[in-house]
Amino acid sequence: MSDSEALVLVEHDAYGIQGAVRLTMNRPRAFNALSEAMLDAMERELQRIGESDARVVVIAGEGRAFCAGHDLKEMRQEPALDYYRELFARCSRMMLTIQRMPQPVIARVHGIATAAGCQLVAMCDLAVASDGARFAVSGVNVGLFCATPGVALSRNVSRKAAFEMLVTGDFIDAQTAKERGLVNRVAAPGELDDAVRALASSIAGKPREAVAAGKRLFYRQLETGIESAYALASETMACNMMDEATLEGTQAFIEKRPPRW
Amino acid sequence: MSDSEALVLVEHDAYGIQGAVRLTMNRPRAFNALSEAMLDAMERELQRIGESDARVVVIAGEGRAFCAGHDLKEMRQEPALDYYRELFARCSRMMLTIQRMPQPVIARVHGIATAAGCQLVAMCDLAVASDGARFAVSGVNVGLFCATPGVALSRNVSRKAAFEMLVTGDFIDAQTAKERGLVNRVAAPGELDDAVRALASSIAGKPREAVAAGKRLFYRQLETGIESAYALASETMACNMMDEATLEGTQAFIEKRPPRW
Amino acid sequence: MSDSEALVLVEHDAYGIQGAVRLTMNRPRAFNALSEAMLDAMERELQRIGESDARVVVIAGEGRAFCAGHDLKEMRQEPALDYYRELFARCSRMMLTIQRMPQPVIARVHGIATAAGCQLVAMCDLAVASDGARFAVSGVNVGLFCATPGVALSRNVSRKAAFEMLVTGDFIDAQTAKERGLVNRVAAPGELDDAVRALASSIAGKPREAVAAGKRLFYRQLETGIESAYALASETMACNMMDEATLEGTQAFIEKRPPRW
Repeated sequence: MSDSEALVLVEHDAYGIQGAVRLTMNRPRAFNALSEAMLDAMERELQRIGESDARVVVIAGEGRAFCAGHDLKEMRQEPALDYYRELFARCSRMMLTIQRMPQPVIARVHGIATAAGCQLVAMCDLAVASDGARFAVSGVNVGLFCATPGVALSRNVSRKAAFEMLVTGDFIDAQTAKERGLVNRVAAPGELDDAVRALASSIAGKPREAVAAGKRLFYRQLETGIESAYALASETMACNMMDEATLEGTQAFIEKRPPRW
Repeated sequence: MSDSEALVLVEHDAYGIQGAVRLTMNRPRAFNALSEAMLDAMERELQRIGESDARVVVIAGEGRAFCAGHDLKEMRQEPALDYYRELFARCSRMMLTIQRMPQPVIARVHGIATAAGCQLVAMCDLAVASDGARFAVSGVNVGLFCATPGVALSRNVSRKAAFEMLVTGDFIDAQTAKERGLVNRVAAPGELDDAVRALASSIAGKPREAVAAGKRLFYRQLETGIESAYALASETMACNMMDEATLEGTQAFIEKRPPRW
Repeated sequence: MSDSEALVLVEHDAYGIQGAVRLTMNRPRAFNALSEAMLDAMERELQRIGESDARVVVIAGEGRAFCAGHDLKEMRQEPALDYYRELFARCSRMMLTIQRMPQPVIARVHGIATAAGCQLVAMCDLAVASDGARFAVSGVNVGLFCATPGVALSRNVSRKAAFEMLVTGDFIDAQTAKERGLVNRVAAPGELDDAVRALASSIAGKPREAVAAGKRLFYRQLETGIESAYALASETMACNMMDEATLEGTQAFIEKRPPRW
């Protein structure tokens, strides 16, 4: 485990999986609050990984919480509209980087995920939660409606459920989060890493090009009409078929043997 | 309880909550059918509340049904295309007013909600149902496909579930409605008002400006791509942070004391 | 049962229901793989039915599988980008025909539905599955990310659930498919046809014009903002009200008698 960044720990070949990178937010006493420095460190590491030959990314948190959202103390110091504009733009940039990078990103949620911490879970492509994890967009409790977290949340769960969380600030538990679409899998605390490993390992075993092109297409087609979506997806699949790995994979399938990747 | 409008009863500080307004559709023998007069009365009251300092709205129905949709008898009297165009435009206007007004609106569904009555539930920001409530978009049974109710329904529940309800006209029960995203909470009949009160009370306790800006942003960002959604939401949050109530709320949080709102 | 096409069996008045047409993919030994010939046969039959006075369509599969997706053997023979472009365009055309035709289409899923076979289920307006049916978008296992199936899948189930299926290639069972919105109903194998018949029969009993206009509107309004959706839906309903069947249906309702359709 390297720790070039004190704020974010980066572990390569995590979980014993070649190509798996684990990013761990490392401000345990501040519940991994997303200070400006933390946002920048996350953004920098995600960009680096995005350009690397990594195959899958896990985002985790050190200490009791997964992530408690923005650093209210830092935010409150010198209130100024332009400062807040820049801060939320910076946070949104980091969140969008997760979606734009070629590798699937898994949130490993072992504790509370609130406000922008809940947004982080929603923005990841996949999420695995401990059954003790809890989720809230609780800004409204201090008078700050979680507008940017709501962008991500409302693209994961149905609108009435998202609206309820946003106006009440109430927590939901991991099982509810799974039923509503915010997380993919729930595991007992002692089995959380096994569940993350299983998912990461499955992804790391797939051809990188196919997964990268597939992820890019997935989010793009979601934002367009179905006819245009089919046009984009058809082009992606046609190109994907010409990949060497895919030609080998399909041939191996026909010959009923494992692919030589 | 005032009843300036016989068709719609308006109760201020409902449920003993300051700022909570309860609108009760009051045509119990007609199952609260949305006649032209009822649509106009609802629209007028919702507009009034929208401009008032109310914090949360509850829509309820008098008698056995919540709302049975359009008034078929009235509709059938003088069939004419232009009349129907005007009627559905009028109904859509009332439905959109719910979404456009600054206060969160909770549907209190104690009985059946059919056709435009089901649409009314779907258009409210939140819904609490008695476990005996039932929901259908049943127009197709008389040859009238519930096209406008389908607009609201398909923005609450997944498309196959919505399509099934629209082409079969079948009822679903309250528990199913909850699982599918049409209602937020289900309560025993005797506990329905407690459940509504709990939700309304939670919302009434939040700063009005934050909730109003948050609601406006929520529906706006749902209709745009994720990058544009983040730009809109970032601006909303930056402005929200400068509200006096939010500066006090965040300061109180840091000082571990309740906000002085 | 006619079998003008060996590849696709067409049964009129299926399930003993007037106006119900059952299309059965008939390549049981190839798990009903969507070869070019099969895609063309399906497209041709769907077009024909679309122009007929049929009221409801059921898509089924002969043999053990519902449909295993593209015919990899055929696809792999002469790899060429333009060939694949044409192939996926052809497949997308057939899939979109299901959505564009005036009759509701029900997938009858008795066995596995993988890749484009899973897409076929997702593109149908409704789906009924045997409780032994299983669903996967498994192309990624051979290096071919199921991009076009993902277009349909991500319009049925929440995005994290869809993404997980796409990057892992894992199967989900029928009950999970129902909970996530991919199928409407699940039945024991021996009761699958009863469940399909009940749904088809309910639809066949509704006025054809209302259902056709309703289906067209349903998909159109899903792709636009809510205000524009209401404008489109209001026009659809106003026109629908003027249909003879609807004037009779509403009059019958008022007179508390069955409609004379």
